[in-house]
Amino acid sequence: MFSWRFFFVNIKSMVDVVDINCDMGESFGDYRIGNDEKVVPYITSANIACGFHASDPSVITRTVNLCKKNNVMCGAHPGYPDLMGFGRRFMDIGEDDLINYIIYQVGAVKGFTDLYGVGLQHVKLHGALYNFMVRQEGLFLKVVDALRKAFGDIIFLTLSTKKALEFKKRCKVHGIKIALEAFPDRNYTDEGELLPRKYKDAVIHDIDTIAQRALNMVKEQGIKSINGRWIPMTIDTLCIHGDNEESIEAAKKIKDFITQQGIEVKPMAAFM
Amino acid sequence: MFSWRFFFVNIKSMVDVVDINCDMGESFGDYRIGNDEKVVPYITSANIACGFHASDPSVITRTVNLCKKNNVMCGAHPGYPDLMGFGRRFMDIGEDDLINYIIYQVGAVKGFTDLYGVGLQHVKLHGALYNFMVRQEGLFLKVVDALRKAFGDIIFLTLSTKKALEFKKRCKVHGIKIALEAFPDRNYTDEGELLPRKYKDAVIHDIDTIAQRALNMVKEQGIKSINGRWIPMTIDTLCIHGDNEESIEAAKKIKDFITQQGIEVKPMAAFM
Amino acid sequence: MFSWRFFFVNIKSMVDVVDINCDMGESFGDYRIGNDEKVVPYITSANIACGFHASDPSVITRTVNLCKKNNVMCGAHPGYPDLMGFGRRFMDIGEDDLINYIIYQVGAVKGFTDLYGVGLQHVKLHGALYNFMVRQEGLFLKVVDALRKAFGDIIFLTLSTKKALEFKKRCKVHGIKIALEAFPDRNYTDEGELLPRKYKDAVIHDIDTIAQRALNMVKEQGIKSINGRWIPMTIDTLCIHGDNEESIEAAKKIKDFITQQGIEVKPMAAFM
Amino acid sequence: MFSWRFFFVNIKSMVDVVDINCDMGESFGDYRIGNDEKVVPYITSANIACGFHASDPSVITRTVNLCKKNNVMCGAHPGYPDLMGFGRRFMDIGEDDLINYIIYQVGAVKGFTDLYGVGLQHVKLHGALYNFMVRQEGLFLKVVDALRKAFGDIIFLTLSTKKALEFKKRCKVHGIKIALEAFPDRNYTDEGELLPRKYKDAVIHDIDTIAQRALNMVKEQGIKSINGRWIPMTIDTLCIHGDNEESIEAAKKIKDFITQQGIEVKPMAAFM
Repeated sequence: MFSWRFFFVNIKSMVDVVDINCDMGESFGDYRIGNDEKVVPYITSANIACGFHASDPSVITRTVNLCKKNNVMCGAHPGYPDLMGFGRRFMDIGEDDLINYIIYQVGAVKGFTDLYGVGLQHVKLHGALYNFMVRQEGLFLKVVDALRKAFGDIIFLTLSTKKALEFKKRCKVHGIKIALEAFPDRNYTDEGELLPRKYKDAVIHDIDTIAQRALNMVKEQGIKSINGRWIPMTIDTLCIHGDNEESIEAAKKIKDFITQQGIEVKPMAAFM
Repeated sequence: MFSWRFFFVNIKSMVDVVDINCDMGESFGDYRIGNDEKVVPYITSANIACGFHASDPSVITRTVNLCKKNNVMCGAHPGYPDLMGFGRRFMDIGEDDLINYIIYQVGAVKGFTDLYGVGLQHVKLHGALYNFMVRQEGLFLKVVDALRKAFGDIIFLTLSTKKALEFKKRCKVHGIKIALEAFPDRNYTDEGELLPRKYKDAVIHDIDTIAQRALNMVKEQGIKSINGRWIPMTIDTLCIHGDNEESIEAAKKIKDFITQQGIEVKPMAAFM
Repeated sequence: MFSWRFFFVNIKSMVDVVDINCDMGESFGDYRIGNDEKVVPYITSANIACGFHASDPSVITRTVNLCKKNNVMCGAHPGYPDLMGFGRRFMDIGEDDLINYIIYQVGAVKGFTDLYGVGLQHVKLHGALYNFMVRQEGLFLKVVDALRKAFGDIIFLTLSTKKALEFKKRCKVHGIKIALEAFPDRNYTDEGELLPRKYKDAVIHDIDTIAQRALNMVKEQGIKSINGRWIPMTIDTLCIHGDNEESIEAAKKIKDFITQQGIEVKPMAAFM
Repeated sequence: MFSWRFFFVNIKSMVDVVDINCDMGESFGDYRIGNDEKVVPYITSANIACGFHASDPSVITRTVNLCKKNNVMCGAHPGYPDLMGFGRRFMDIGEDDLINYIIYQVGAVKGFTDLYGVGLQHVKLHGALYNFMVRQEGLFLKVVDALRKAFGDIIFLTLSTKKALEFKKRCKVHGIKIALEAFPDRNYTDEGELLPRKYKDAVIHDIDTIAQRALNMVKEQGIKSINGRWIPMTIDTLCIHGDNEESIEAAKKIKDFITQQGIEVKPMAAFM
């Protein structure tokens, strides 16, 4: 009998590299969120907030320089214009406005990556905008198209699902780079989507469990759903967090576990 | 006896080209300011608001496209983060923050000029920030330095004064392009500065007077102060306005008067 | 055969008074929206924007004073925290936050009505928040409850529908005053709801038609839907607009038509 | 020889009560500043941020309720409209606008104190606005006048200086209540003003020193300047901080020291 799991375990030898990304630069003025300095040693790609849902120009400057110093690649992390809601609330914005909001934010961050002589590796949408766009393939492509016209050859992150893998393949034909990401500290539904945060078990808090899941995800290119069903995944990058001490510890363990298995942790631009 | 006036009248034959700039893209959401569509035929350079004191991403898109369609060169017009005060109120912001705020705004606008395949010709500061920076040569140079590192070979506008001319010459040695601008609809003090708006005669409203002053300024490279004293000026660009019907009429007349005298009206990048 | 129309025509003699309300104070900083000074003679109640989707503290001051001078009653007009979208875009805000946002905005406006010694007559939600709350009776009641606790005996406006009339009656038992409003310049569906703006005929532009509809609405307490079906309504107040010259003319005609028929135009607080 | 110190030590027996105030509710959305829950047991008056330089409607709700639960009196703490700068940067705002901004903010907070049935005891300006207004007696009085018209009998906090004491006395004649405050963790100049933060010794960090100074200030109604000169003061309230663990400890000690000396710590409204 054919088993997806068996199939994927067999190809795991092919997996010799993965990127680790983390949201960074989410402070604002006197307000501090995140432990960017502590998590930066364990990541390869930073999603830098752009000033709409979080961050300000001076936070962006500090974050780009922190990344530069730690050889972490910079990406822009645009969100809804909702600082009070941290970009976590859906806003019913028209398509054209939405594209313009994203161009504006990515352009603003690119000003700083250009100033400090580092590249803009990728773009990852934030919060409610990320969740909304995962289901809007047509609009997502319009955004990608505009961003490539404006900023050239950048990589676009999205949630690793079966549908996203097909999307990635179709994009590749047109030279568009889509990186698929998985969340070690999140449980998945049987359909391979993130279990929504309203459910009790949505987020995993145990550090060892998170690190082990991260390793398994990368090695086996998949994870068991909350109900024990195997969800095959293609994983270019793992999304981790740096919000608190526990997440920093988890970040360290994730990197340790993966590199101890001989898998390289590299910025996605190095292998995409 | 030596006369500055005589000297400048004599060199007027050298003046065969001038730029005309105007603040544009100052609308915000449903709010409209300015008659951009009506003034655009009479200008060569647009100072596009960047979203801090005015404008939003969709206004920037519209404005860049309007400029592109009319062969008007785009510049960024950063201001203080004060939409409620339209950037007209001094804010005591630290130097580093100020530089970051400017990089952010110019980067955001450059995203759109890149998207639509037009260059970013220049940067002109707005309102209270413009007035503050005119007196801060050291900080101005820091801003210029950062902008050039981030965005390459752009032109910087500042008020044409005797001091600014010397500044322009020193900058030229280092490859920095400073464009000096004059205001046909403003009266000047004996010291060659703009008569502050609090004075009754600060702003000239008569259309023919404005157009004649514009022509004289360009031809004679100078203007009489409010007290009749001759103020020699180097004028690369005239700053006009498009706020209302009268200013549109004045804009038309300014361009007509100047071109009828055989002086070309061209974007500053063409002759600097 | 029983006819709703006949029934309502018969009770029209009971209708001897109506309120006319209009959104006002929607300017922001240097940005102007609306012709408040021109429309104010034709209305009895003003819905004053509170600074989230439009307005600022100085606009509120001017608007409250304009109302005071013209014997127009002041109401607060809270909206989503989305100045860039003028409060016209749905935002998925949690119930508690939403109630807090409304308290904040109404409190801010009440500061000014208290300062200038006029009462706060009513509260009307704005834009997407209005449309959302029309369908959220439970949450609407929570908002009403909080507002009454904070600000005492105020009137709440909502769209006049069959369901809203029942709601109004139930509220009355508890001493809660709900004013039902109709829109003379909008077409209605067969179900008695506003034809959404995306449809071509959503908004009526002909001044005489609008004024005649306003009169008919009040006299007959109902209006024909876009398909000719009779929609009975209870109308405490008509919502009109002051955006442009045409709407000002319509406002004048509406008031003229209604008063010429012997119906009084009075602030809703006078008859509720 | 007459000694101010001797004079004040003698009247110390008259000092049997003092208020302790602290800035609170300075969080914003997901951003947290301050340890309000930890400092609240040691204070009697809370200065609640109003949403311009810090805070949002839901933070205000939480803060008012926290105060209510702990029998701490609520005050409004309006600041400049500069969230990015936390209200710490001077903004050159016109007088009328400034008054309107303050009315707006105090009104918004009063909405919540009215909702939860607690009074609005006082108003204290924040940051750069506080510092600016200390030197603007005329404008300060205009603000006080508007606030009293709008919100009734509230107390106004200002820095305790010799000039402020005279101001307080003149105000008292007109029924205006001015509370004078001192800062135990700040060093003072010989002129009795706060040593600006740019100086190394501006802020005192040692917990015991702060607590001892607080006690001395209250008992002796004065403090030695940074140069050892005696600065007589009238102290209605001590301003303390709750930013970090050290300040919480200092707060506890301040209250302990003062109450152990038989001086009551009470909300200012109880004795003014």
